[in-house]
Amino acid sequence: MTKPTDGLTHFNAQGHAHMVDVGDKPHTKRIAVAQGRIEMQASTLQTILQGHAKKGDVLGIARIAAIQASKKTSDLIPLCHPLSLSRVDVSFMADEHQHSITCRVQCETTGQTGVEMEALTAVQVGLLTIYDMCKAIDRGMTMSAIRLLEKHGGKSGDWVASD
Amino acid sequence: MTKPTDGLTHFNAQGHAHMVDVGDKPHTKRIAVAQGRIEMQASTLQTILQGHAKKGDVLGIARIAAIQASKKTSDLIPLCHPLSLSRVDVSFMADEHQHSITCRVQCETTGQTGVEMEALTAVQVGLLTIYDMCKAIDRGMTMSAIRLLEKHGGKSGDWVASD
Amino acid sequence: MTKPTDGLTHFNAQGHAHMVDVGDKPHTKRIAVAQGRIEMQASTLQTILQGHAKKGDVLGIARIAAIQASKKTSDLIPLCHPLSLSRVDVSFMADEHQHSITCRVQCETTGQTGVEMEALTAVQVGLLTIYDMCKAIDRGMTMSAIRLLEKHGGKSGDWVASD
Amino acid sequence: MTKPTDGLTHFNAQGHAHMVDVGDKPHTKRIAVAQGRIEMQASTLQTILQGHAKKGDVLGIARIAAIQASKKTSDLIPLCHPLSLSRVDVSFMADEHQHSITCRVQCETTGQTGVEMEALTAVQVGLLTIYDMCKAIDRGMTMSAIRLLEKHGGKSGDWVASD
Amino acid sequence: MTKPTDGLTHFNAQGHAHMVDVGDKPHTKRIAVAQGRIEMQASTLQTILQGHAKKGDVLGIARIAAIQASKKTSDLIPLCHPLSLSRVDVSFMADEHQHSITCRVQCETTGQTGVEMEALTAVQVGLLTIYDMCKAIDRGMTMSAIRLLEKHGGKSGDWVASD
Amino acid sequence: MTKPTDGLTHFNAQGHAHMVDVGDKPHTKRIAVAQGRIEMQASTLQTILQGHAKKGDVLGIARIAAIQASKKTSDLIPLCHPLSLSRVDVSFMADEHQHSITCRVQCETTGQTGVEMEALTAVQVGLLTIYDMCKAIDRGMTMSAIRLLEKHGGKSGDWVASD
Repeated sequence: MTKPTDGLTHFNAQGHAHMVDVGDKPHTKRIAVAQGRIEMQASTLQTILQGHAKKGDVLGIARIAAIQASKKTSDLIPLCHPLSLSRVDVSFMADEHQHSITCRVQCETTGQTGVEMEALTAVQVGLLTIYDMCKAIDRGMTMSAIRLLEKHGGKSGDWVASD
Repeated sequence: MTKPTDGLTHFNAQGHAHMVDVGDKPHTKRIAVAQGRIEMQASTLQTILQGHAKKGDVLGIARIAAIQASKKTSDLIPLCHPLSLSRVDVSFMADEHQHSITCRVQCETTGQTGVEMEALTAVQVGLLTIYDMCKAIDRGMTMSAIRLLEKHGGKSGDWVASD
Repeated sequence: MTKPTDGLTHFNAQGHAHMVDVGDKPHTKRIAVAQGRIEMQASTLQTILQGHAKKGDVLGIARIAAIQASKKTSDLIPLCHPLSLSRVDVSFMADEHQHSITCRVQCETTGQTGVEMEALTAVQVGLLTIYDMCKAIDRGMTMSAIRLLEKHGGKSGDWVASD
Repeated sequence: MTKPTDGLTHFNAQGHAHMVDVGDKPHTKRIAVAQGRIEMQASTLQTILQGHAKKGDVLGIARIAAIQASKKTSDLIPLCHPLSLSRVDVSFMADEHQHSITCRVQCETTGQTGVEMEALTAVQVGLLTIYDMCKAIDRGMTMSAIRLLEKHGGKSGDWVASD
Repeated sequence: MTKPTDGLTHFNAQGHAHMVDVGDKPHTKRIAVAQGRIEMQASTLQTILQGHAKKGDVLGIARIAAIQASKKTSDLIPLCHPLSLSRVDVSFMADEHQHSITCRVQCETTGQTGVEMEALTAVQVGLLTIYDMCKAIDRGMTMSAIRLLEKHGGKSGDWVASD
Repeated sequence: MTKPTDGLTHFNAQGHAHMVDVGDKPHTKRIAVAQGRIEMQASTLQTILQGHAKKGDVLGIARIAAIQASKKTSDLIPLCHPLSLSRVDVSFMADEHQHSITCRVQCETTGQTGVEMEALTAVQVGLLTIYDMCKAIDRGMTMSAIRLLEKHGGKSGDWVASD
């Protein structure tokens, strides 16, 4: 027989939320890569790409916002353990056919918990910053396909998205 | 002839980022509604919904995280003006056919700037919190279709997403 | 017949937490006074009072911590509206017979919501800071009688504690 | 002869506040348990307990606020060292005779400083959140008996409250 | 006869720090301009300026850091009132003869308190960010001449630095 | 041939900002000492020094602000790694001839990155707090000569300012 919270480690035996005990887990190298995209009008993408080349650097600012957000993850996600990231790398890829920009973030640390949430939070805030900076010309931008691509380290070991 | 930053109000005439002057804008009632969903395995959705009814309240915690995130928007989004929200309402809707949960957020204030970013930020963090709480059983969850549904107030007036 | 959440304004009709809509409330002058005390060994109180007069100013530091905490209230209390305080005053009173120190905080603003939580949060953090600074010599210090003394302004008007 | 700041480790030889040097202390397992209660009207307690069972979950929200506050301790308490908690557990116990709710928090980490302040801060914010959510029906609620119950680890070793 | 705290409005009549009461002050337009510079080796300045033109945009990142810091002023400066800025503009000027970069910040709001601290805080963090990004090649960079250039609005009216 | 970002470790090979990978660096003892001064009118210095001796303790408050700011460094400086300081010591020295106050900060930790930015940030916020508390009597105060004095530990080893 299964219990409703089976497998949901953020709840204790009484079903109450807790910050789960990781004190006995070994410190291992942790890597997570997450990704997501923002879809926009073709003209919006052109404005961003031209600005990137010349002035008005939307992606440069979104990159900084993403990096800073990764450091705030445990402040945003209630049951997330605080940790000190040893590396954050953010890249943007434009797709001119689908007129979208993909944000990919790799986070790393050596610790007792994974860095999946840090990578996903950075992606979300990177995309939100693009939205913020372009919303005056394109309110209908949509953020999609935000997900974990891979993670390494920890008890559960390697995980790579199936597609 | 168009300039690269045409319409991107977050850049000044020199192409440098700034927090744009809103000092002369009137204080009007501002409303924004944003939405997004997280797709998961059917069994993950069942675990969440059973926990919601009984114990281990994933959605209750995600709601609190979303509300708190709305208050941190100007700390996360570099060029966003700080403002004091007068209302934040977060709702979750489960779709058992597509095994997804949709998070919808309505933010309101009376002020010189809109609250679109606050509503979108709350949606993102609400979805991220669901991911965090269920990632031990379903790392492949994907967040999608995160966008503004409507906004009211301000110089640009009403805007409603076309679909 | 009463509903479980009757009177608990932080829940909506569905029983879900929300940041309640205050957008239609008038902006009025708000004042709240809160108080609490920390009880300690007689010798601990003497150490604090001597340091206050000469050097090692425990209460001066606790006062700063209390003021800063009042500004973080909406970050700490999930459903609290953000607001900008126009005044924060913190005073400490030593009781040498009961060997305790009382922290009293008065907060004020003009706005749509009260400042009771700001005053109580400041009291709590003021007392916690005293505990922190003296815990090396007295771990058994106890914080008690932390409560609202009075509030003024808003729809519910004046309220003064009965004793 | 005693000096005014004898034993107050947060002051240096000149009587000036500092964040004391812990760099040479060994990394040991640290545990702290703190507790406090909030007293209320009998009807307020009934409203909370009924909501907990059905909807409008005051204690679930207070638990999240307490956990999040534990992570902000070094931001609130001026001379507190930052540290990364490895576990936070929050429990609430209702006393229907005294119509009060007790909040108990256990924090753990492995590090150079104790986690007493993290546990006490979480208790305070847990109680404050109950106050916030019920203040519309009971402004006279009082928080009391907030104290450390026990701590383990570090140079000073085990400490358990005497009563 | 003068009292020690004469004119220091951040202390009350008892000499205790407080967040001074501004509740009765009118809401007026507030403007502050602050400035400071960072001096460096000639080769460091060349690296920054070349990067600005091509890639590796030190000043673009420092600008974002300065804007974000302006929003955190009341969190950093203990007795500073929280306020919502309506405009922040940051500019950098390179002096190739003195091989220094000057950061100038203009902040504006309409409110009961001035925005001098916001402008100065932004300058400091803008300069610190330049230091951070270039310290691997030039640890001896020095920040100097950080001061208010002018302020407008409020009871004390206009003030312009004498030189 | 040199590249524009030669030596600027905060940029990757593509010239994009990143939080540089420190995961393979050894954990070593890190020490940094930074310093800066604020110049003021002779009468302002007298007011501060008299208050320090009697009441209205400007420097005591600036010391707390400096310590707290050191803990926020990675939140303020975009590409700064988060770290947990093991010691922060802040001292102030008055120069009655030049009517200035010098703030000196020593930060320490054991970790993979240096603490220069933490020491410099603490100096800046310590000086800013003095400015804030005295600006009502002396708006023309100027902060100068803010720089690193020495650093120890890490791959680059010892560094001491030449003058």
